[in-house]
Amino acid sequence: MKLARFGYDDWESYGLVEGDRVSVIQGSIFREHTVTGVSYALSEVKLLPPTQPTAYWAVGLNYAAHIAHQEEALDAERIQRDSSAFRPWQKGANCIIGPGENIVLPAESDYVHYEGELLIVIGKPARRVSVEDAPNYILGYSIANDVSGEGSWAADLSNWRRKMCDTFGPVGPWIETDVDPHDLEIITRLNGQEHDRGSTSGMIYDCYYTVSGISQFVTLRPGDLILTGAPGSVEQLHHGDVVEIEIPGIGTLSNPVVAEEV
Amino acid sequence: MKLARFGYDDWESYGLVEGDRVSVIQGSIFREHTVTGVSYALSEVKLLPPTQPTAYWAVGLNYAAHIAHQEEALDAERIQRDSSAFRPWQKGANCIIGPGENIVLPAESDYVHYEGELLIVIGKPARRVSVEDAPNYILGYSIANDVSGEGSWAADLSNWRRKMCDTFGPVGPWIETDVDPHDLEIITRLNGQEHDRGSTSGMIYDCYYTVSGISQFVTLRPGDLILTGAPGSVEQLHHGDVVEIEIPGIGTLSNPVVAEEV
Repeated sequence: MKLARFGYDDWESYGLVEGDRVSVIQGSIFREHTVTGVSYALSEVKLLPPTQPTAYWAVGLNYAAHIAHQEEALDAERIQRDSSAFRPWQKGANCIIGPGENIVLPAESDYVHYEGELLIVIGKPARRVSVEDAPNYILGYSIANDVSGEGSWAADLSNWRRKMCDTFGPVGPWIETDVDPHDLEIITRLNGQEHDRGSTSGMIYDCYYTVSGISQFVTLRPGDLILTGAPGSVEQLHHGDVVEIEIPGIGTLSNPVVAEEV
Repeated sequence: MKLARFGYDDWESYGLVEGDRVSVIQGSIFREHTVTGVSYALSEVKLLPPTQPTAYWAVGLNYAAHIAHQEEALDAERIQRDSSAFRPWQKGANCIIGPGENIVLPAESDYVHYEGELLIVIGKPARRVSVEDAPNYILGYSIANDVSGEGSWAADLSNWRRKMCDTFGPVGPWIETDVDPHDLEIITRLNGQEHDRGSTSGMIYDCYYTVSGISQFVTLRPGDLILTGAPGSVEQLHHGDVVEIEIPGIGTLSNPVVAEEV
């Protein structure tokens, strides 16, 4: 089942996506709700970020191939220091944008790259949840681009400029409730050309461990989002690029890239 | 002017605090609003966290005396590495609690301390704001306790357990709109005994620099909160303690401390 948040004229709603149409949902997708008979063509509506989370968490450096790529390409000392343990951090809800919205490269930036990732969507309040029970607290999965700066302009231990700039958090296009999160391909394309293909089977900390782990100290709430890490290599983004992340079984998240006008 | 968010029976509202009473405000405190003739005794209502922010930012290590204390007492290598530059980070809205609510020490924790701080409350969307203009984007100031873990149980570069655990973010009791933020005393008491007294005149990055600085890369939104750092020394918290942070001219934020029951 595909659940989308969308805008039409000046109102917004959740909807059930089937084929090229979306049917309006009445009520909260996190509680009781009904699918109405009112539907729109997907081409008529504007897809929005699938939730408005109270927290946007991330688990970085979660695939061996990505760690190897980052050590080679970038800040090896930092990467090695970070990669020794389960290390969730907050990307921050402020950077979230929806499908088709512009990723804006800050005027100060000299290097920004994409990271195509599987996104966990929390369905129920989760605290001190076991790994075995974790699936019951997950509503479904979506796609995210963990847009990231590197280099001197973004050299913050706190990930402030590195990860949290406005527009660095594209998510969407919707929530898929019926997939095995550990048997998915993630394909990333830049301007139509495939640059990376990986499988979520390679996660170091899988989705259930991640939800359980964060919930040991933090209450996860319905709609909260968790990034699960990029599987492989990454490429720099430039003005005029279009970056597309496809997870077959979920969908495709596509965003244009523009340079900030100052 | 003191603006409080409060609960009464099963509804909540903003109100104007005068003496020991709070008058109901109609409309959003961030837009047009009116103070009604309906009022309650403060003793009748439950004060709530003064906003529900989309982002809860922080600037740490913002006073020389606090940096010196931390270097002596704790993780000197990390502190020194962190203290070289403006380094905002996100504490996360998930940890926020209101006045009088319990700070809960996680079962795994072996060391947790208080940090009494001045809290900035954003009033208008702020992006690429200059230091000179920053005051126009600030609605007012409140009080925060940046409850923090140290030691092996919380050794995360990401500040996950160190700063973001449930209940580690007491804020309140209300927003004061008419104070000079750089001429305030911060007094912290543990079980009634004063342990630290500092002045906000000692900030390395003052409130206007901080708002301007974060806004260079991030849109701050109405209600967003920013911690400005603890002025001096800190003490460990134990089950049964009451920690009280007073900023004369604003008010007092008081919270009991309990050990987690597992």
